[in-house]
Amino acid sequence: MSYFRPEIDEMEGYVPGEQPKGMTFIKLNTNENPYPPSPEVEKLLKSCDFARLRLYPDPLCTELREAAAELYGVRGENIIIGNGSDDILTIAIRSFTSDKKPLGCMTPTYSLYKVLARIQGAECKEVKLNGDFSLPENLLEQASGTGLFIFARPNAPTGNSFPIELIEKFCAGFDGAVMIDEAYADFARENCLGLVGKYPNVIICRTLSKSYSLAGARLGLAVASPEIIAGMMKVKDSYNVNMLTQKIAAAAIRDQAYFTEITGKIKKTRKRLNEELRKLSFAATESETNFLFVSPPDGDGEKYYEYLRKSLILVRYFPGDMTGHCVRITVGTDDETDKLLELTSKYVRSA
Amino acid sequence: MSYFRPEIDEMEGYVPGEQPKGMTFIKLNTNENPYPPSPEVEKLLKSCDFARLRLYPDPLCTELREAAAELYGVRGENIIIGNGSDDILTIAIRSFTSDKKPLGCMTPTYSLYKVLARIQGAECKEVKLNGDFSLPENLLEQASGTGLFIFARPNAPTGNSFPIELIEKFCAGFDGAVMIDEAYADFARENCLGLVGKYPNVIICRTLSKSYSLAGARLGLAVASPEIIAGMMKVKDSYNVNMLTQKIAAAAIRDQAYFTEITGKIKKTRKRLNEELRKLSFAATESETNFLFVSPPDGDGEKYYEYLRKSLILVRYFPGDMTGHCVRITVGTDDETDKLLELTSKYVRSA
Repeated sequence: MSYFRPEIDEMEGYVPGEQPKGMTFIKLNTNENPYPPSPEVEKLLKSCDFARLRLYPDPLCTELREAAAELYGVRGENIIIGNGSDDILTIAIRSFTSDKKPLGCMTPTYSLYKVLARIQGAECKEVKLNGDFSLPENLLEQASGTGLFIFARPNAPTGNSFPIELIEKFCAGFDGAVMIDEAYADFARENCLGLVGKYPNVIICRTLSKSYSLAGARLGLAVASPEIIAGMMKVKDSYNVNMLTQKIAAAAIRDQAYFTEITGKIKKTRKRLNEELRKLSFAATESETNFLFVSPPDGDGEKYYEYLRKSLILVRYFPGDMTGHCVRITVGTDDETDKLLELTSKYVRSA
Repeated sequence: MSYFRPEIDEMEGYVPGEQPKGMTFIKLNTNENPYPPSPEVEKLLKSCDFARLRLYPDPLCTELREAAAELYGVRGENIIIGNGSDDILTIAIRSFTSDKKPLGCMTPTYSLYKVLARIQGAECKEVKLNGDFSLPENLLEQASGTGLFIFARPNAPTGNSFPIELIEKFCAGFDGAVMIDEAYADFARENCLGLVGKYPNVIICRTLSKSYSLAGARLGLAVASPEIIAGMMKVKDSYNVNMLTQKIAAAAIRDQAYFTEITGKIKKTRKRLNEELRKLSFAATESETNFLFVSPPDGDGEKYYEYLRKSLILVRYFPGDMTGHCVRITVGTDDETDKLLELTSKYVRSA
């Protein structure tokens, strides 16, 4: 006899990307930023009044909310702060889905969406992307009946984005809540923040894990109408974000010069890596993220992944019809990229 | 039209104890520890390799789990780490309750339990404590049919504990999961950790917020059978605990000398405060926590609360039949206690 809900007993847990002990690997598997966070973070941690850790943190994250509101050109009441964007996703799925209201999302996409629906006891309606990872014509029709539809835009693990006009058309025509998970938008040409003022059902999700180099601090947020934010606030843990992360995140957001520098470097390296892999006959579409989703010349993603792993470079392989011909490679430093290209060149030559 | 689930629309959010801006108040309202965390925490933060914040934290909290396992005399596989014990409570309620499996708890108790059940769409069956805040005779019968039963032991806001024999009898006879929320157990004479090896349905919940002075860092944990822990792991966010909190918590747990010193000081002050309040004709039962739940001579909790608030001492008042004659006072420093007693003495004399 089990004490658990049947949904929990029957499900597999989410398997996050491997976090190897020690640093023998060049780690290009979980889309972390290769550069350290803003020097303001170190300054802050060193001058922090550590005695204040005895007190509960601000449940509203007021200072951080204001800093984020200023950055995104909205008001504090348009923002909810999460313990990483995974927390924001959990809050949204608990707010808008149930056994009566399915979740909707594209496939392939960030696999956590489906797992979170499972935990919630909600069905997950997966809408298949076209073979080139673009949105299908009849998307709105397929999404019908879901209480929440999540787009990752740019999408993961595919790295491409979807035309903003199609997303806007969807928001206008869809009668549930729409979350646009912009975890990678800081590496893209444009974002959907402008939709928040126009559509009451739009929720933009952001994270500081990638573009601000703060995966270890856990900070995500959502931008939406005050009504949506107020409802989601009821679902979040009061003290979901610890005191240090609130301060670190505000400091990082205020240092836009550093942010622009490191995201710029990553975009430059991404361009070079993409061009060089194409020269080696890889199929590599344009990426709007801090990773590339590329197919080796023989179309065997698993083999290339295993080769790199043996060579102490960790990338990510997603088995399956739509993704198995590719691997996902996080954009690292220039040195890491040189090493990857050197090994890949050997791989292609010896094939 | 609302986008939210009806349960969310209809509910009020949980209202945490007031966190006033600035420090004009003597803050005795949210059971924070009046002493700073272990000096090891400051050392650690100052020597931290802040560049590692770019990487995701260990999803299993391995180092911290091992430190906690050693302290509690169990194995790592018996422990799950949460983003505060509120996170552990959420994980448990999502694991074991649903619209088909109610939550059970005592009343009065920590009011968050009921709110979390509401978010989950689960009914909350509240079993009334006796007038002296002891457990009723027919508890097991009243708890029947619930999927998870939570005891706060020692209980909040009442401060008393329940006989361990009665809890054990309950665990043996109950066919759902039993969580014993030991948020305050480090201030009590004994705890229920010994039940974990004996009953497969027992989950002990702990927090570092109170006894380790780390409310701002957010760290809670549960101790249970490996089977229970493995199931709860599927429900938790992979990266629910940030890198700094994992390190801070492990350092604090290892510094048992400091822990013993500050919890000892608090128990000593608690004893003095209790005795002095009794001299002022307050009804004050023995507390096994870091707070007292006391009734002023005229039995008007609200009036005494308002008086203290005007005098810039913040305590907590819980309206209602069973609790309205009392206020909950967190045990502060000796200076804070002197001030509280001075004002209370005036209050009683002028009544």
